[in-house]
Amino acid sequence: VPSFANSAMDGFALRSADVGTLPAILEVVTSIPAGVISDIPLGSGEAARIMTGAPLPDGADAVCPVEQVRYLPGVGTVEIVVPVRRGAHVRHPGEDVRVGDRVIEPGTQLSPGHLGLLASLGIDAVEVVDHPRIGILSTGYELTSAPGPLVPGAIRDANRFALMAAVRQSGFTAVDLGIVGDDDCDVTTALLAGAARCDAIVTSGGVSVGDFDVMRRVLQAICGRSARWVQIAMKPGKPFAFGTLVSSGVPVFAVPGNPVAALVSFELIVRPALRRLGGHHLLRHPVLRGIASAPIERKRDGKLHVVRAIASVDGEGQVRVRSVGPQASHQLRAMADANALVLLPDGDGVAPGMSVEVLVPAMDRLEACTAPSVAEVA
Amino acid sequence: VPSFANSAMDGFALRSADVGTLPAILEVVTSIPAGVISDIPLGSGEAARIMTGAPLPDGADAVCPVEQVRYLPGVGTVEIVVPVRRGAHVRHPGEDVRVGDRVIEPGTQLSPGHLGLLASLGIDAVEVVDHPRIGILSTGYELTSAPGPLVPGAIRDANRFALMAAVRQSGFTAVDLGIVGDDDCDVTTALLAGAARCDAIVTSGGVSVGDFDVMRRVLQAICGRSARWVQIAMKPGKPFAFGTLVSSGVPVFAVPGNPVAALVSFELIVRPALRRLGGHHLLRHPVLRGIASAPIERKRDGKLHVVRAIASVDGEGQVRVRSVGPQASHQLRAMADANALVLLPDGDGVAPGMSVEVLVPAMDRLEACTAPSVAEVA
Repeated sequence: VPSFANSAMDGFALRSADVGTLPAILEVVTSIPAGVISDIPLGSGEAARIMTGAPLPDGADAVCPVEQVRYLPGVGTVEIVVPVRRGAHVRHPGEDVRVGDRVIEPGTQLSPGHLGLLASLGIDAVEVVDHPRIGILSTGYELTSAPGPLVPGAIRDANRFALMAAVRQSGFTAVDLGIVGDDDCDVTTALLAGAARCDAIVTSGGVSVGDFDVMRRVLQAICGRSARWVQIAMKPGKPFAFGTLVSSGVPVFAVPGNPVAALVSFELIVRPALRRLGGHHLLRHPVLRGIASAPIERKRDGKLHVVRAIASVDGEGQVRVRSVGPQASHQLRAMADANALVLLPDGDGVAPGMSVEVLVPAMDRLEACTAPSVAEVA
Repeated sequence: VPSFANSAMDGFALRSADVGTLPAILEVVTSIPAGVISDIPLGSGEAARIMTGAPLPDGADAVCPVEQVRYLPGVGTVEIVVPVRRGAHVRHPGEDVRVGDRVIEPGTQLSPGHLGLLASLGIDAVEVVDHPRIGILSTGYELTSAPGPLVPGAIRDANRFALMAAVRQSGFTAVDLGIVGDDDCDVTTALLAGAARCDAIVTSGGVSVGDFDVMRRVLQAICGRSARWVQIAMKPGKPFAFGTLVSSGVPVFAVPGNPVAALVSFELIVRPALRRLGGHHLLRHPVLRGIASAPIERKRDGKLHVVRAIASVDGEGQVRVRSVGPQASHQLRAMADANALVLLPDGDGVAPGMSVEVLVPAMDRLEACTAPSVAEVA
């Protein structure tokens, strides 16, 4: 690609030897649109009107752009007034891709440019890693998705919808596995049934230290030696359980039931694993350096605090962040408005102007104070 | 939300007045899982085992986490050894959302958190702006999508596939309007037919100054006074045409035929307009500050150069960029590997270590040298 020498500009194909002394007046013998092979070779003193992408006629070795010549349509000649070196404005065969080139590395996430590149090579199918299907299960007797007023003590299940959206936003397929009560047998049945139609399962709830926390018991029972139940030095998102089902090899990620903790655990712990399952090499969102535009307070507790924040980019291209406000792990409202997570190490927090680590999951939710501006020249 | 006072921790619900002097030994009169209303009010000197999210029993006004008590299952008492203030570890009604609160502003792009928030409120449908349907049309007699070897002078159409992918990546629906030759009548027919099933149309090719550049002629004919044909002080992506079809009001964006120019024009000029059509308030990707890790050369020509680049984030959270290499506007291969666009103002380019403006369209294609790491505490 390209497969033949063609013009990079709208202009005149010519023989560079003819324009050694300027101005040079050449006879225009033909006009070549893109897609057309001219059967008129250029002789000495001759030129051809040529369009971008059109094949160079035999004899031509350079193109002079239409903006740089003196030419009146209807007159049979063109006057070349600027030097034109050999090869000027000519795209040579193989300039983009040569035979034998390796054009896309295995494991590449295909961009719009890659799809165009494949099309330009006539490749209409490539082997890909299928989007993993991720089952989402909520656990807890208190949860409901029924319409109408809540019965006393019940709460509406938010996690399933939030986690399914997070799964889809990551490019995976979400499978709704519903709600199941805190019963070992029911949870086991739901996981085994879900594993039959999913590549991985993410559950929420039942992983902390309460008497009714079912996930760690069940994963120990059905995941054998792969079962793990850990306390991560992170807030929110401390409790976490994991196991690979012995029966099917399907991995199960158990995040906490608090909605904010569920989403933070998904972003930091689960999503990278699912990305690997999906064949990706880049697993994590990058952590940018930002500047706190207001104090972010915290207490020393030995944990990484994951602070839900609003990030914006100022006129200097600097990322600025401020906390969204209430940071309790059940307060989903502030989480919903956040477009970034600030990773705040153990300590006393940061003062305005101090540097912080910022994770920005969705670039198109990042506010910019300025935008690229370009001028019109004509 | 929450609709009732409930425990933020697994622990013991108690009356804070009972634990004024420590240690205090309380009688455990019941155990309350989440989802269950206890009908046993707490009397003086009494406590209830309680799970995260479970409703506080009548009489209780605080919770002491299970990690902070002395308690042996099977024994009927719990020993409180740390102070517990009134309201401790209790989530009060309305702490997240109160009746009458405006929870999501109009025009918000719904995040996973927003979907969870809506679910927590029992809202299963909201009014949204539909994804605009964007028709993609390639123009040029030289273009083909036919399988098999190319006929001489023909090139394979890359733009349609690249632009459809860019449209989908932006969250819109792409409609393939095919290829049409550089014929005014054929292009007119294709645009009018496309407008019947699309909210906007993006064409590529036919916008520069060549004799066969059909788009500006056609748009002038069928878009009336809205038709514009401009030269933008930008490279690649200088020629651009726009018009709103008189017959239907559907906007048509005509980007150049060179594949790299087509994608750059889409990102900088077309996508922000389509975002507005889709009801978004944030129209552009933010421009971050980056550091050139190698020289980026350019010549003075009065234009903004849009340099295809590889961006990565170093251990300090600093964005570092280097050019991907060949920057001619037909060289799609280098574009495909780029994950960022450097906006290089007119001048002589930048030396290593100098600051540049970087646009990163896809955060999950941004390489990070470091990743957030969290420790396991148990």
